[in-house]
Amino acid sequence: MDFQSAFPVWKKLNRIQQKRILDSLITQKLKKGTHLYNENMECTGLLLIKSGQLRVYILSDKGREITIYRLFDMDICLLSASCMLNSIQFEVAIEAEKDTDLWIIPTKAYKSIMQESAAAANYTNELMAARFSDVMWLMEEIMWKSLDKRVSAFLLEEASIEGTNELNITHEIIANHLGTHREVITRMLRYFQSEGIVKLSRGAVIILEKEELEKIQKA
Amino acid sequence: MDFQSAFPVWKKLNRIQQKRILDSLITQKLKKGTHLYNENMECTGLLLIKSGQLRVYILSDKGREITIYRLFDMDICLLSASCMLNSIQFEVAIEAEKDTDLWIIPTKAYKSIMQESAAAANYTNELMAARFSDVMWLMEEIMWKSLDKRVSAFLLEEASIEGTNELNITHEIIANHLGTHREVITRMLRYFQSEGIVKLSRGAVIILEKEELEKIQKA
Repeated sequence: MDFQSAFPVWKKLNRIQQKRILDSLITQKLKKGTHLYNENMECTGLLLIKSGQLRVYILSDKGREITIYRLFDMDICLLSASCMLNSIQFEVAIEAEKDTDLWIIPTKAYKSIMQESAAAANYTNELMAARFSDVMWLMEEIMWKSLDKRVSAFLLEEASIEGTNELNITHEIIANHLGTHREVITRMLRYFQSEGIVKLSRGAVIILEKEELEKIQKA
Repeated sequence: MDFQSAFPVWKKLNRIQQKRILDSLITQKLKKGTHLYNENMECTGLLLIKSGQLRVYILSDKGREITIYRLFDMDICLLSASCMLNSIQFEVAIEAEKDTDLWIIPTKAYKSIMQESAAAANYTNELMAARFSDVMWLMEEIMWKSLDKRVSAFLLEEASIEGTNELNITHEIIANHLGTHREVITRMLRYFQSEGIVKLSRGAVIILEKEELEKIQKA
């Protein structure tokens, strides 16, 4: 797919604006495991994911993490251009969870178009509203749902993303997604194992009873 | 103050747009304690607070609450017009914490202007970014901060809003702000009382040692 078809607001821009984007457009490859931190990236620009997977997360002073959302093929990352919005008062970090190919629309070019074009500004509004909704969903999960439900939901999500019930993932990584401690995840997974729902081995969690995880998640 | 001076984007609109807003503008008074729920209000419009205080919160199925932010004089509530953004996928409720005078710009009028005017659309972006930042701040509080710090911060905030150290507030209300249970708040406040930091009486919390609360909050 080419950039023009992938970028949703393309047709609503005029020729001059389209040229300004194409002239400044950057393509970039991120190796799996690459981390981008706010100070380096908050003025990078809009990231449009050609293929791959990004995890957007927050970090505490003490190194704890929680995933706030993930981005997949054709998703757009707005917070990597957060310096163009004065009212964004928080910092996030981004990790490439898979090898990722990106188009980058640099902040300066995008900001200038957003200031001229109501269509681009409203598109940006919808992008931000979508991410805001992701975070509100997460807030409700954290506030009202017990951890067994959140771990079940996470394992099911992983299985769906990877297309397999054999997940190569450590307890530490699960803890970092869910904003808790490794020990807590280990305890929960051992409980699931004792119930015959999963099987644990070094660096892997194998889902044996998907339906049971679905039941816990919905309970 | 008149509406024209209070509405930040006013001068960037053209005459026709200004007239469209003034023709549709509504003023409304909310009595302290009035609750607005999403189904009734998500298409109300932008609320501009002439004077008063609103609390925006989320509600669980089981009736638990957590305050996501508060709005004061000259603040603008965007989520009361959330139906104009397709990507807003969550519901909030609003409570007038004091008698509140509002201007309401109905959703239909505002949406039409946002579609024409890049200035209005970008202003909406900044509004949403500010609320998104409030929620991210809250998320970090919940994830990384212990409850003693959050209760201390809440009592100090209340004292600052009300301009007094004698807070007429129940343990239940504090619990609803912070998304926890009344019993948990009662236990925490009794601990603060045993340390001589506050004094508890029926329906009131009296702050005796403000500096101690500040120390706990920052610890």
